[in-house]
Amino acid sequence: MSLTSLKSKDLLGIEQLDKEEIELILNTAESMKEINTRDIKKVPTLRGKTVVNLFLEPSTRTRTSFEIAARRLSADTLSIAAATSSLTKGETLIDMIKNIEAMAPDAIVIRHSSSGVPHMISKYTKASVINAGDGAHEHPTQALLDALTIRDYKGTLQNLKVAIIGDILYSRVARSNILLLNKMGSKVYVCAPPTLIPPQIEKLQVSYTSNIYEAIEDSDVIMMLRLQLERHLHTSFPSVREYFKLFGLDTEKLKHAKKDVLIMHPGPINRGVEIASEVADGPSSVILNQVDNGVAIRMALLYLLIGGKRSEDNY
Amino acid sequence: MSLTSLKSKDLLGIEQLDKEEIELILNTAESMKEINTRDIKKVPTLRGKTVVNLFLEPSTRTRTSFEIAARRLSADTLSIAAATSSLTKGETLIDMIKNIEAMAPDAIVIRHSSSGVPHMISKYTKASVINAGDGAHEHPTQALLDALTIRDYKGTLQNLKVAIIGDILYSRVARSNILLLNKMGSKVYVCAPPTLIPPQIEKLQVSYTSNIYEAIEDSDVIMMLRLQLERHLHTSFPSVREYFKLFGLDTEKLKHAKKDVLIMHPGPINRGVEIASEVADGPSSVILNQVDNGVAIRMALLYLLIGGKRSEDNY
Amino acid sequence: MSLTSLKSKDLLGIEQLDKEEIELILNTAESMKEINTRDIKKVPTLRGKTVVNLFLEPSTRTRTSFEIAARRLSADTLSIAAATSSLTKGETLIDMIKNIEAMAPDAIVIRHSSSGVPHMISKYTKASVINAGDGAHEHPTQALLDALTIRDYKGTLQNLKVAIIGDILYSRVARSNILLLNKMGSKVYVCAPPTLIPPQIEKLQVSYTSNIYEAIEDSDVIMMLRLQLERHLHTSFPSVREYFKLFGLDTEKLKHAKKDVLIMHPGPINRGVEIASEVADGPSSVILNQVDNGVAIRMALLYLLIGGKRSEDNY
Repeated sequence: MSLTSLKSKDLLGIEQLDKEEIELILNTAESMKEINTRDIKKVPTLRGKTVVNLFLEPSTRTRTSFEIAARRLSADTLSIAAATSSLTKGETLIDMIKNIEAMAPDAIVIRHSSSGVPHMISKYTKASVINAGDGAHEHPTQALLDALTIRDYKGTLQNLKVAIIGDILYSRVARSNILLLNKMGSKVYVCAPPTLIPPQIEKLQVSYTSNIYEAIEDSDVIMMLRLQLERHLHTSFPSVREYFKLFGLDTEKLKHAKKDVLIMHPGPINRGVEIASEVADGPSSVILNQVDNGVAIRMALLYLLIGGKRSEDNY
Repeated sequence: MSLTSLKSKDLLGIEQLDKEEIELILNTAESMKEINTRDIKKVPTLRGKTVVNLFLEPSTRTRTSFEIAARRLSADTLSIAAATSSLTKGETLIDMIKNIEAMAPDAIVIRHSSSGVPHMISKYTKASVINAGDGAHEHPTQALLDALTIRDYKGTLQNLKVAIIGDILYSRVARSNILLLNKMGSKVYVCAPPTLIPPQIEKLQVSYTSNIYEAIEDSDVIMMLRLQLERHLHTSFPSVREYFKLFGLDTEKLKHAKKDVLIMHPGPINRGVEIASEVADGPSSVILNQVDNGVAIRMALLYLLIGGKRSEDNY
Repeated sequence: MSLTSLKSKDLLGIEQLDKEEIELILNTAESMKEINTRDIKKVPTLRGKTVVNLFLEPSTRTRTSFEIAARRLSADTLSIAAATSSLTKGETLIDMIKNIEAMAPDAIVIRHSSSGVPHMISKYTKASVINAGDGAHEHPTQALLDALTIRDYKGTLQNLKVAIIGDILYSRVARSNILLLNKMGSKVYVCAPPTLIPPQIEKLQVSYTSNIYEAIEDSDVIMMLRLQLERHLHTSFPSVREYFKLFGLDTEKLKHAKKDVLIMHPGPINRGVEIASEVADGPSSVILNQVDNGVAIRMALLYLLIGGKRSEDNY
């Protein structure tokens, strides 16, 4: 018997999911994709449900993707952004969550600059908490949409070689992808300057190289990570030109990859820093498919986490 | 015959309401609460109505509460916040209201840092104006949700002793609560440092004391007010520690109160300033019930003010 | 046979429209106006359609008008404002549009401080692009709502004399109105200080005068433009008082106009700078009718551009 619901009320990270749950999410997303190709892209599944988007760190793309996902399922959405939040008046985050909870939302989507915040707030609310990125910890919906994109093209998530290249040290995207790909039976190679690799990288069960050609060779998928220029320039490497020369993906380096390699990037792209425009816009790139799949994955999660409750009630 | 509709198109303040209207609002809110416990928390009552939330002073909690209330009744909401408003281009507030009016909204919820703004704008619009806080003047929906919370626990709003403790001078919450409790037949004691009491406090028909034990003794309800630290520290009292010692509610002081006293706070809380965490989170606290009732009160008002119009038309 | 749909998927400017298309938009808006007078101001026409409002230059009034228009037709709206946008992270506008496109919106309403941006982005999206103002280039929905207002009062857009007075140099409103009025067979007189007139004004097929009395005389319509004080004071003219004396519309100057002249202004008004309060609020002013018509014009455009697609599909 295959799984029909998730085990937890929350999606806190890939760490908490098992293989069957990941497959359930991907399969559900697959059926959501069809809705997004309809002329009337809306179903009444989550009518009367309230989804609070609590983005305490700026984000357009992820917030927008969650909002569109919620609306396509007919949920009401409410956005609370950092700048306008009462947190500026010295309120604690827990008090804020308790207040939101008192308004009886069904899901709280949270992005926060500190690791572990979604786990902490899940104790204070009956709503489903969805981690939309917490510090350098996890960004599970990104890893799930990446997995959906890989499966779309490769037909499987097993026995693949996936290279993740760039700022591994601070990347929640890298962390969630490594966890997911390991669970699904693929092999991850990380590649970065030594200054951008976490100290105990081997604990994550990945292979490490600082030679991009080694990472690229035989890879089925190459995930490029966004370089946070404001954070790293002059501290972690000498110049953008130097970084691009050693770790940026351009047409020249791509010649060493497999013909059917997939090029991925979580966005937003720094063109000419971690990836050349010709590669980002080239035939191997599935960067925009990732965005497309982002809406489907978030619809699937909202459906599984708060739509599922519906079966318990008669209405 | 009991009242079935409010006398004015607007809710400008508690001052304009009579006892029967207050009871109508509370009774209507009582029936709205049931909707908020449903799995599908949505009714079509205000479908096709437009509620403009015009918050010209920052607020997350009140704006969110009004938005949720409007959506649960299926109204469309439109938020205009100070920062993004064209008022920054030198437009007058009246021109802005005339412009909003030309778009034919059904209700305008307004928060403004100046007293009397809701009254002024109500002359320029056919929409129902709801005061969501104007300067140090009134915050009627807060007083109504406080009243609903008290009535939930005490069964009545008559013959109660209510202590309001803290920054009385600048508090629209205090003012609206005093007006409401007087109208309903309860007795209000205000307690604050002499520097935070308005000059002619006796005109508000309350008893005044600067001794918190006197205020607490025999009280059925204790309302703690938020202290605006940025405004008062070093001018109205020497230090936060000093303030907390004299006027902060802690377990020690609470021992002098009645066993069944209700502890209330409009939020956001300054923990350890006006109230100790043990008290805010303790068994006598109904602070989160207040938030919960906030949505119900705002649903009731939207229903009474703009849903009521529906009966005049056939549709 | 009269036209029943627009020729392009986008509304980029008045320049791209022919006379029949302008009439189609105005006639459609006329029928939308009726919806705005209903008690339930909502029709299901665009249910399941997503309208993205991408305002990369601040605007309350135009954004609000588009949002209300979209909601009245039951479309979902998603607002992305400059401040919160990921453009601040160095993403290119084209990458941002590609990302929005991947989420499959039906229309993108864009305001941008650079001329030509709507044209550029239309190449990157299958969605209908609506220009909500691009630099000093065009603001077509403003010209269309102005035209609807004129037609409401004058019964025609032919053979009228229309005076446009003020900051012609930087005004996209002036440019779009000149293009529209020329196409419809009216005669435009522009009037401004020589410093606020573009170098080759005659190419726009208008008459030019720096004497406001000459512009006003025999005019059927007087459009006053907003003066951007922050930009022009002390560089383009000596003082506000001087400007108002020469180019501001007051009761005295209005005596030289026709009895049935219409006074228009795109808003927000600088009272006492380009127009006196008595005139802005006087009997000849149709400034608030313009706002009202703004919602109807935007409903018409959304209907024609993205509602029309519906006929191709069966659903």
